[in-house]
Amino acid sequence: MIDKERLTRQMDFCREVDKEKEVFRQSFLCDGSRRENDAEHAWHMSIMAMILQEYSNEDVDLLKVIEMLLIHDIVEIDAGDTYAYDTEGLKSQAEREAKAADRIFGMLPEDQRDWMFQLFHEFEEGNTPEAKFARSLDNVQPVMQNDASEGKDWKEKGIRLSQAIERQRRTAEGSQILWDEVSKPMIQKNIDLGNIIGDVSLDKI
Amino acid sequence: MIDKERLTRQMDFCREVDKEKEVFRQSFLCDGSRRENDAEHAWHMSIMAMILQEYSNEDVDLLKVIEMLLIHDIVEIDAGDTYAYDTEGLKSQAEREAKAADRIFGMLPEDQRDWMFQLFHEFEEGNTPEAKFARSLDNVQPVMQNDASEGKDWKEKGIRLSQAIERQRRTAEGSQILWDEVSKPMIQKNIDLGNIIGDVSLDKI
Repeated sequence: MIDKERLTRQMDFCREVDKEKEVFRQSFLCDGSRRENDAEHAWHMSIMAMILQEYSNEDVDLLKVIEMLLIHDIVEIDAGDTYAYDTEGLKSQAEREAKAADRIFGMLPEDQRDWMFQLFHEFEEGNTPEAKFARSLDNVQPVMQNDASEGKDWKEKGIRLSQAIERQRRTAEGSQILWDEVSKPMIQKNIDLGNIIGDVSLDKI
Repeated sequence: MIDKERLTRQMDFCREVDKEKEVFRQSFLCDGSRRENDAEHAWHMSIMAMILQEYSNEDVDLLKVIEMLLIHDIVEIDAGDTYAYDTEGLKSQAEREAKAADRIFGMLPEDQRDWMFQLFHEFEEGNTPEAKFARSLDNVQPVMQNDASEGKDWKEKGIRLSQAIERQRRTAEGSQILWDEVSKPMIQKNIDLGNIIGDVSLDKI
């Protein structure tokens, strides 16, 4: 006998997360044609985890990395996307996201709700090898898109390197190679092109 | 020493797959507001694999299921989405997709290219427990969306049950429970509502 209430809760959750496709980020697609949404972002990073896993500083359980990447933005269905450089929004972000996690993960049967909470918090805290690598990808992916779109988002926002640095510090924590060989040279190139305002030295990171 | 050529190929691939976000499917989001794209679809099914894995007919390696779901539509960057009921398009689908797989997976270093081919073909052939369950989700997800949007895509296309059946036969192969308890009742409900033309008996599946 299957537990019909359990299945109903699970399907309600599966339908609910469809809304993540309507939460738009600040980052543009690589061709600069439009901003991307959270679902697309999560999918893209999950593929990148598959392809780039060998560059994690520490050995990782790839399934766990991908699970974190897939689910970590679900809370934004209620809490909205908080732009990395929105200092006001960042203050209330944790509270808004905790409330959203309660509601949305709370739709699931208890065991799966607890599992989602665990993955979400592990990603947010960023202490395990898997969380560090996942967060590294969460930084590398928009840099790659920004670089591909000739710095579209950086230019529109007038981003200074001192702001970008804050966000990028964590890249090397998960992957020194992706920082040294991918993000750092891309950022340097965009400083040289004037797409990022080089107000501090990149070598300080 | 890192292999820079390898990393360059991997990053080129990661940038290339961004284009999957611009390949649109026939299915509407649950709220019916717009059609969804392949990247959103792959993300959604991967979450569903996490939540619904207990309903697979056979034990599955969840990582492999998710990897197949994440990558199986990458070929549509070149080959386009072939609508499940487009009989003309279906004839040339395999050839168009094979060519696309050669080009896009061929961007990767050989070992990863071979891995992507293996995952792609395993999904297409649908013989392993993982492929069966992944394909089951590939059927359940659009039924769920169609049901949520009051049969929007079915109604627009005037879909007959005899067409829908063809696609749904495989759902039970991967998950008898998802067929019996989710897709089948949803389809029956939409026949009753007149959203699907009930030209044959649902019990024949």
